[in-house]
Amino acid sequence: MAKKTVVIGGVACGPKAAARLRRLDPDREITLVERGEEISYGACGLPFYLEGQVADLAELVSTPVGVPRDVNFFRAVKGFDVRIRTEAVSLDRAAKTVRVKDHGSGREEDIPYDTLVLATGSRPVRPALPGIDLDGVHCLKTMADGSAIKAAMEGASSRRAVIVGAGLIGLECVEALLKGGFEVHVVEKLGYPLPALLDEEMAVPLKKHLEAKGVRLHFGDGLVRFEDDGNGRLARVVTEKTSLEADLAILAIGFRPNVDLAVNAGLAVGRFGIKVDSFLRTSDPSIFAGGDCVENRHLVTGRPLYAALGSTANKHGRVIGENLAGWKSTFPGVSGTGICRVLGFNVGRTGLSEREARAEGYEVVTALNPGGDKPHYIREKKAIHIKLVAEAYSGRVLGAQILGPGDALSRLDTVAAVLTMGGTVADLANVDMAYAPPFSPAVDNIIVAANIVQNKMAGVARAYSPAEVKGKVTSGEDFVLLDVRTPKEVEALRLPYENVVHIPLGKLRERAGELPEGKEIVPFCLVSLRGYEASRILLEKGFDPARVRFMDGGLLAWPYEKVSKG
Amino acid sequence: MAKKTVVIGGVACGPKAAARLRRLDPDREITLVERGEEISYGACGLPFYLEGQVADLAELVSTPVGVPRDVNFFRAVKGFDVRIRTEAVSLDRAAKTVRVKDHGSGREEDIPYDTLVLATGSRPVRPALPGIDLDGVHCLKTMADGSAIKAAMEGASSRRAVIVGAGLIGLECVEALLKGGFEVHVVEKLGYPLPALLDEEMAVPLKKHLEAKGVRLHFGDGLVRFEDDGNGRLARVVTEKTSLEADLAILAIGFRPNVDLAVNAGLAVGRFGIKVDSFLRTSDPSIFAGGDCVENRHLVTGRPLYAALGSTANKHGRVIGENLAGWKSTFPGVSGTGICRVLGFNVGRTGLSEREARAEGYEVVTALNPGGDKPHYIREKKAIHIKLVAEAYSGRVLGAQILGPGDALSRLDTVAAVLTMGGTVADLANVDMAYAPPFSPAVDNIIVAANIVQNKMAGVARAYSPAEVKGKVTSGEDFVLLDVRTPKEVEALRLPYENVVHIPLGKLRERAGELPEGKEIVPFCLVSLRGYEASRILLEKGFDPARVRFMDGGLLAWPYEKVSKG
Repeated sequence: MAKKTVVIGGVACGPKAAARLRRLDPDREITLVERGEEISYGACGLPFYLEGQVADLAELVSTPVGVPRDVNFFRAVKGFDVRIRTEAVSLDRAAKTVRVKDHGSGREEDIPYDTLVLATGSRPVRPALPGIDLDGVHCLKTMADGSAIKAAMEGASSRRAVIVGAGLIGLECVEALLKGGFEVHVVEKLGYPLPALLDEEMAVPLKKHLEAKGVRLHFGDGLVRFEDDGNGRLARVVTEKTSLEADLAILAIGFRPNVDLAVNAGLAVGRFGIKVDSFLRTSDPSIFAGGDCVENRHLVTGRPLYAALGSTANKHGRVIGENLAGWKSTFPGVSGTGICRVLGFNVGRTGLSEREARAEGYEVVTALNPGGDKPHYIREKKAIHIKLVAEAYSGRVLGAQILGPGDALSRLDTVAAVLTMGGTVADLANVDMAYAPPFSPAVDNIIVAANIVQNKMAGVARAYSPAEVKGKVTSGEDFVLLDVRTPKEVEALRLPYENVVHIPLGKLRERAGELPEGKEIVPFCLVSLRGYEASRILLEKGFDPARVRFMDGGLLAWPYEKVSKG
Repeated sequence: MAKKTVVIGGVACGPKAAARLRRLDPDREITLVERGEEISYGACGLPFYLEGQVADLAELVSTPVGVPRDVNFFRAVKGFDVRIRTEAVSLDRAAKTVRVKDHGSGREEDIPYDTLVLATGSRPVRPALPGIDLDGVHCLKTMADGSAIKAAMEGASSRRAVIVGAGLIGLECVEALLKGGFEVHVVEKLGYPLPALLDEEMAVPLKKHLEAKGVRLHFGDGLVRFEDDGNGRLARVVTEKTSLEADLAILAIGFRPNVDLAVNAGLAVGRFGIKVDSFLRTSDPSIFAGGDCVENRHLVTGRPLYAALGSTANKHGRVIGENLAGWKSTFPGVSGTGICRVLGFNVGRTGLSEREARAEGYEVVTALNPGGDKPHYIREKKAIHIKLVAEAYSGRVLGAQILGPGDALSRLDTVAAVLTMGGTVADLANVDMAYAPPFSPAVDNIIVAANIVQNKMAGVARAYSPAEVKGKVTSGEDFVLLDVRTPKEVEALRLPYENVVHIPLGKLRERAGELPEGKEIVPFCLVSLRGYEASRILLEKGFDPARVRFMDGGLLAWPYEKVSKG
C-alpha cells in the first residue's frame, strides 16, 4: 500500500514540501490541507499590491506565466491533492490521523498519515486592546487583508493612516499609503525604526529619510486603544503620548507562530515556535515542521530565534520534501537576514547587530563606513552606510547593517555568504568581488569595512563611536575634536562645538605642534579615512598613542547636531 | 639610520603599498617613482570619461572631496615622496640600488633601498602590424590615451569606429562610441564576446543584445593591418574577412605585464608576470611586487593566471605595505571575477567557466537558470541568466556566469564569497540571502541554480544542454522534443522542428500515453522548471529513466533558431 503524507498549510513551506516529495517519490499519496481559500500565494507581495505595483491580487496566486495556482493546478501539475477551506483541528499521533474540518460543509473527518508536515504558518500579533476589532483596523497577512486594506484606502475620507510598528512590514506599507495620498503616522514602541534589525546609531539615517519624506514618526510611544466614530468605525488611534485622528490603521507589530495544533498534540514547542532538529523533524519522528510555525536556529549563535520569511520557508519545504522521501537532508539555520526598501531607501541586516552580539556575550569590534556605492566620478553613484560587526578575538564576521539609497543588496549577500561559511573579516576582505566602475569602487565598501575591523584588531586603528564622542561632549570633557577636512568642506558642514580645531590633513604634519599637549585628540573627517590617517600622522609626530583616537564613520555617520550652510 | 623603501609605479598598487607602509611605520624613508605624469589615477574610469559620465579627466586624479592627488598631496597627506616623469631603468640587487632616469632633465641617478616594490603595471598589447602607428589608432590605458581618444571622437569626420577586441575594455568603449554618434564595429578573433570570461552558449544573449543596439560585430575575424589616407591618418581597418572604412580605431586586445625591469634584474618571471609568493615577495626577499605586473594565483585551481584589475591591485598594495612594515600578511589569490555593463546589459563571471574547468581536468556539473531578478509580480523586475559550474563529485562551486539587464552583481558577489571560502553548492543554496520582493524572488536565482546542480548530482534531474539538443536535431536523431508550456506560450514562441510534441504540463499526467514508446523524450519549457517537472512526471508514469532528459534552461537559454509571432 502506498505511504501517505499529509501536509497542513498551503502557503509556502507546505506546497514546496509536497511538490518536492512528489518529484522524489511518485508513489506517495499526498494530501495538503489549507484552511484558507488560496494556495501558495505570494503573501510578501501584498504591500506592493497596496502600492499599486501589482495590478491584480490574482498575480500573487499565479505562476510567472499566468497559470493560477489553484486546486486543479496542484492536482494536474504538482501531482497532489489539495483541500482548501479545510482546517486541521487535532492530531492523534498514536493513531496517526489528523482530524480536519471542512469550513464549507462543517463536516469533520480523520485523515490517516504515515508522515505529517506541519506548515501552519503564523498570525499577526493582535493585542486585546479596546477597539482592536473596529472597522478600519487591519493587519496585513492574508489576501483578504490585502483586499480589505485596498478597499479601505480607496474609501477613506480623512486620508490619515496610522501604522503601528516600524518593522519590515510596517515600513513596506508606508510607501503604499503615502502614494495613496495619506498622511502617514508610524507609532513604534521602541525608540527607532527596525529595532529588531538595527543598532540605534544605524537607524538614524533611516529615521531622517522617513521624516524628510513627510512620514510622521512616533517612536518610544505605545499603542493604548482604538476609538470609534459611533458607528463601529475607527475614528482615532490613542497612544501613550498622543491621539491621532485616523480612518485607517495597520497593525504591524510582529507575527506569532501557529503552534496550537502542535501543543495540543504534545509536540515539543519552544519559545519561538515548534521545535525541530536540523532535519526539520519535530519531537515526533513521523512529523516534520517548517516555515513560519517553527523555531529557527541562528547560524552564528547556534541559538533559537523566530525568523519568518518566505525565503526561509521555501528552503524548509525543500529539506522536508527530501526527508519525507527518505533522504537525510539538513537545514543549517538562518543568519537573521532582512531587507526592505522604503521610499527609495534600502535598509538591511544580516547576522547580529552590535547590541545583539553583546547581549549574546560576544566581545565585538565594529566598523562604520559611510560612502558612495560606486567611484566618486560615476554620476549614478548613491550613498550607502555600513556597520560591520565582528568577534574581537577571532575576527569572525558576526553581522552587518547596510543602508542608504545605494546598492545595499550585493554587500549584504556577500556578508551573508561569508557568515554561512563561518568566515572572518580577513576572508571577507579577500573576496574577489565583481569590480567595474558602474557597479562598485575598486575597494568595495564592505571590504573597506572589513579592513577597518582588521586595523582595529591589529591595534593600528583606534576609534570612538559617534555615540562615545557625543558622550564626551555632553559630559563636558576637555578634549580636542580635530577636523581634518578642507576649508571648503568645513564651511559647508561642521560640528558646533567649542573644542573643534580645524587643521586640514595636508597641513597636519607641519601644524601638529599647534595642538595642545596632554589633551586627548579625536580626529575626524567626512567618513573616517582621513580621520584615521590623521591619527597615524599624530603618532608619527610623537603624540601619545593612548590619547589619540579617530571618530568612527566621520561626519556622515554622526547622527547628532551638525551645522550646515547653503 | 631610517630604513629606505623605494616603490616603482604610481597607479594603484604602488601608492597603496606606500601609504599603508607609512601608516604602519612612521620612520621609514619612502620614495615612489612614476614614469608618467599622474599618480594614483582612476584608469578604470577612462571609458566613462569617453562616454561623458566623467566631466573632466581631473576627476580621475582627485580624491572624492576634490583634492588633486599630486606630488604635494602625497608628500603632505600620505607622507612619502613622489617623483613623477621618473623611470626606473635598472636594478642592482647586490648593491640594493635602483637606477632612475628623470625624463625632464635626462639625468640618471641611483637610489638606494632596503626594500623595494615593483608595481610596474601593464601595457596594452600592440602587435607590430602595418599601420599600427597611424594617427587614429589608439589604445586605452593612460590618461593621455583618454585625452587623445576624446579629441579624436570630437574631431572625427566619417564617424565610424572600429574596436579591436571584445573583452571588458573593448565592450566598455562600445557605449561611449555609440553615444558619440559613431557607427561602431567590433572585431574579435574568437567566435564570441568576452571569450576570456564566458562559455560560448552564455555569450549568445550578449551578442544579440549588442546587435540589437546596432553594434556591428565581426567575430572569428582577425586584424590584418591599418591603412592610411595618404596623410598618415587612419583610413581603413583591414581584417582577414573584410575592410572597414574608419577614422578611429581602439585596440583592446589585452594587456601584458611590464616585467623588463624584473627580468633584467634576474628575478623569477612566470608566464603571466613577475613571480610572487603569497606574501607577494619576489624571488628576492627584499623585493615585493603587486598589481598588474605580477602573476596571480587562482583561488579555485591554485594555478597561475593573469588578472589585472584595480580591485586586485589595491588588495596587493595593502598586503605589500604590511609586509614591508614587518607583518606577515598573505594574499590568497583571485577568483577570476570580472564584470561590465554595456548598453544596459550586465555581464559578469566569477571562478571558472565550464570550458576552463574542463580544460583544468575537472569533471563538472552545470545548471542554466534564466529568470526574473525579482518576483514576477514586481514591475521593475528584469531578466538575468545564470550558468553555475560545480565539481561533479564534491559539489564544490567552481564558477558562475551571470548576465542580462537585471541585477547580476549581488549574485556574482555571493558566489565569489562562497568560492573564497571553498564552499559547495549546498553551502550556496543555504546562504541566507537578503529577500524582499523589490530585491529578489523568495528563492533567489542563484539558489535555484544551486538546487538544480544538487538535483543533478543526486540523479534526480537529468538534462541535456541546449548545445547537446541542437546536436541531436542537426544529426537527425529520432527523439521527441516535448514542449510542456501553455498553448498561449507556444503560439507566441516555439521551436521550428518536426519532432516537437506539445502537451501542456497540466495535461501531461493524463496524456502521457500519447507519447511514442521507445523514443527518447526531452521535455522543455520557458526556463527549465516545468521541463524538469515533466521529466519527473514521465518517470512517475513508467517511462524509462534512461530515455528521459529535460533541456537545461528552456527556451530562454536556447540560443538557436526559434519562431516567434507578434
